[in-house]
Amino acid sequence: MNDAPLLTYPEGRKKLQATYHDGLLVDTMKFWFPRSIDTEHGGFLHCFDRDGSLVDTDKSVWVQGRMSWMLLTLYNTVDQRAEWLAWAKSGIDFLNRHAFDTDGRMFFHVTREGKPIRKRRYAYSEAFAAIANAAYAKAAGDSAAAERARALFDLFTDWNFTPGKMPPKFTDARPMIGLAPRMITLVTAQELRANLGADAKLDRWIDRCIEEIQRLFVKPDLRVVMEVVAPDGGIVDHFDGRTLNPGHAIEGAWFILHEGKWRADAQLIRLGCDMLDWMWERGWDAECGGIYYFRDVFGKPVQEYWHDMKFWWPHNEAIIATLLAYELTGDLKYARWHQQVHDWAHRHFGDAECGEWYGYLHRDGRVSVPLKGNLWKSCFHHPRMQWYCADLLKSAK
Amino acid sequence: MNDAPLLTYPEGRKKLQATYHDGLLVDTMKFWFPRSIDTEHGGFLHCFDRDGSLVDTDKSVWVQGRMSWMLLTLYNTVDQRAEWLAWAKSGIDFLNRHAFDTDGRMFFHVTREGKPIRKRRYAYSEAFAAIANAAYAKAAGDSAAAERARALFDLFTDWNFTPGKMPPKFTDARPMIGLAPRMITLVTAQELRANLGADAKLDRWIDRCIEEIQRLFVKPDLRVVMEVVAPDGGIVDHFDGRTLNPGHAIEGAWFILHEGKWRADAQLIRLGCDMLDWMWERGWDAECGGIYYFRDVFGKPVQEYWHDMKFWWPHNEAIIATLLAYELTGDLKYARWHQQVHDWAHRHFGDAECGEWYGYLHRDGRVSVPLKGNLWKSCFHHPRMQWYCADLLKSAK
Repeated sequence: MNDAPLLTYPEGRKKLQATYHDGLLVDTMKFWFPRSIDTEHGGFLHCFDRDGSLVDTDKSVWVQGRMSWMLLTLYNTVDQRAEWLAWAKSGIDFLNRHAFDTDGRMFFHVTREGKPIRKRRYAYSEAFAAIANAAYAKAAGDSAAAERARALFDLFTDWNFTPGKMPPKFTDARPMIGLAPRMITLVTAQELRANLGADAKLDRWIDRCIEEIQRLFVKPDLRVVMEVVAPDGGIVDHFDGRTLNPGHAIEGAWFILHEGKWRADAQLIRLGCDMLDWMWERGWDAECGGIYYFRDVFGKPVQEYWHDMKFWWPHNEAIIATLLAYELTGDLKYARWHQQVHDWAHRHFGDAECGEWYGYLHRDGRVSVPLKGNLWKSCFHHPRMQWYCADLLKSAK
Repeated sequence: MNDAPLLTYPEGRKKLQATYHDGLLVDTMKFWFPRSIDTEHGGFLHCFDRDGSLVDTDKSVWVQGRMSWMLLTLYNTVDQRAEWLAWAKSGIDFLNRHAFDTDGRMFFHVTREGKPIRKRRYAYSEAFAAIANAAYAKAAGDSAAAERARALFDLFTDWNFTPGKMPPKFTDARPMIGLAPRMITLVTAQELRANLGADAKLDRWIDRCIEEIQRLFVKPDLRVVMEVVAPDGGIVDHFDGRTLNPGHAIEGAWFILHEGKWRADAQLIRLGCDMLDWMWERGWDAECGGIYYFRDVFGKPVQEYWHDMKFWWPHNEAIIATLLAYELTGDLKYARWHQQVHDWAHRHFGDAECGEWYGYLHRDGRVSVPLKGNLWKSCFHHPRMQWYCADLLKSAK
């Protein structure tokens, strides 16, 4: 038996590639499709119990965009299966028919038929619809979808970065800005570039978001990536301001590593590795394994009482980040971390009997909620990881 | 050793009474006071770590009202200590100076100095300020406080029961109404009656809330108390509509038992006992002990991933409800349940070293967050339970 991390030797890399590739096409996609296709109203049903039985007919607008994007990304990069394109079109058509309010903004939560249930202050529905439309434009050569993608990106950035546009959750007594809008702008711009082609405006947004993340949220003296800060980057020493989301910052780290790879920019790769290193140190649970959901920057108690749960998505993001960091640097540490998080996640989130991953574990890895899908979890983070990692390792075939 | 529940024999009842009385005055009050008094800005600091060290200087408006009410209730019913009255006055003065927006509604979260941070759609700040002012009116003979209490009660009921007043969280595609506004109206009216005297308007609100709870939320065929329903009482078969909060319904049960006792109304006592019976069956964790936070009415998975945690407040409410049900009915079942929840809660939430109770446990009773106070947990549910139970048992002295 070879104890070296799989990433460090050819047979191991082939084995890993097969795990991701087959996991994606045989396990994950077969859980979601065709089960999720709503042949009556269009779009995707996604609130599934462990065994795939439907527990809620409602539809998340995020999910319609994300699942369309996932199908289209596989169509564009893995295999041009007509059914993937048709299913994705059904998701995009549902969005076009039902997800827009009269002000041009999108809803968050709709009924199966498409009646609006809830609209949020923030505009992530628009960002996920933008990447779906961009991927559809490429898949179908549809210039109207390309225009919609660009318009939704403009709406998202305008909503997030024009002061006064987004209705505030808090008064202006203690202003804070978040890592999330910058991360989502970055990855959305990267996706539009991948599917619609290079564009100076997208590059400017990518540059701006990385610059703001580095200048305002990354704190080398504290070896931390903050989740929210004061507008000048100061740490807001209250519960909300101190709360870290290590898996989220690690997701941001790989968005920056991806950009460093794209641009062959050693400084960006260094930034992404620092973010990964520091948030791995803060997020990895040395006692039980896995990545804590929340931590406090100063080690104080977190107000969120479920802070130590293990969610599926941060583990998917950490698998990508550690793999990408190893591929870019050859640093053995990353191969070890990759093995560690890959093994823990597959052992605890995996469900050999019914397929896909559980979403929500207790700290020690026991399942808390058996749902495979809900308003947040769908066919997105897990297959995106499998797709991205299989693609990175495909030379290992 | 006597294995019978303590409630069922005189020595046991004396012992229980001492546990509640001494726990309140020696343990709980000594944890909070004078530590929480903000001698600089007035009102109460309340975000304390396990050992009482301050981890956030922010103030919850709920907490200012609730802690003032608790101090005044002890002043009015246990011991006229001048410091209790002075501290409560500081809380009420802080509310009057800082907690009101220009539209007459109250904020939810303010800085230590009283600058507003957040206002919510709902109006529970107003209800807790109402009971604080009513208790102050009685303690200090202050008619202005009595008027404020009445005005805040009117504002709260108007906000909750006048269609269109409260800004909606959801669209009107699937209207739902909640148990919570009816429970809080009921208990707030009971408190105003206790401190300001009987009043036909308060009685009408009490009647209306109990009638609506029984007609719309209590489902004898399913043996359940729903947390939200359609306006006609129908079950909304989606995640939110199916989610039960057993500890909350058990709190509602004792508000109704309290009314049944006040009015010597056997039908109300029967209603409260049914609510307690059904939600005990649904909420008690037969494997690990304690009361689950959320359950699904049809046994489906709950969307809230932390559904199986054990919170301090439902256990306090269940201790009151089971004790009150036993006192009113003599049914041995309630004495057993009381012993069961009293023992489990004291064993797992108690902190013999630092005092007070932890707030948030994992399902198996291990502490998740060691905080003794935050924006929601303060000197309220636990001492209210100790006070109410000690008072119920005081003839056992």
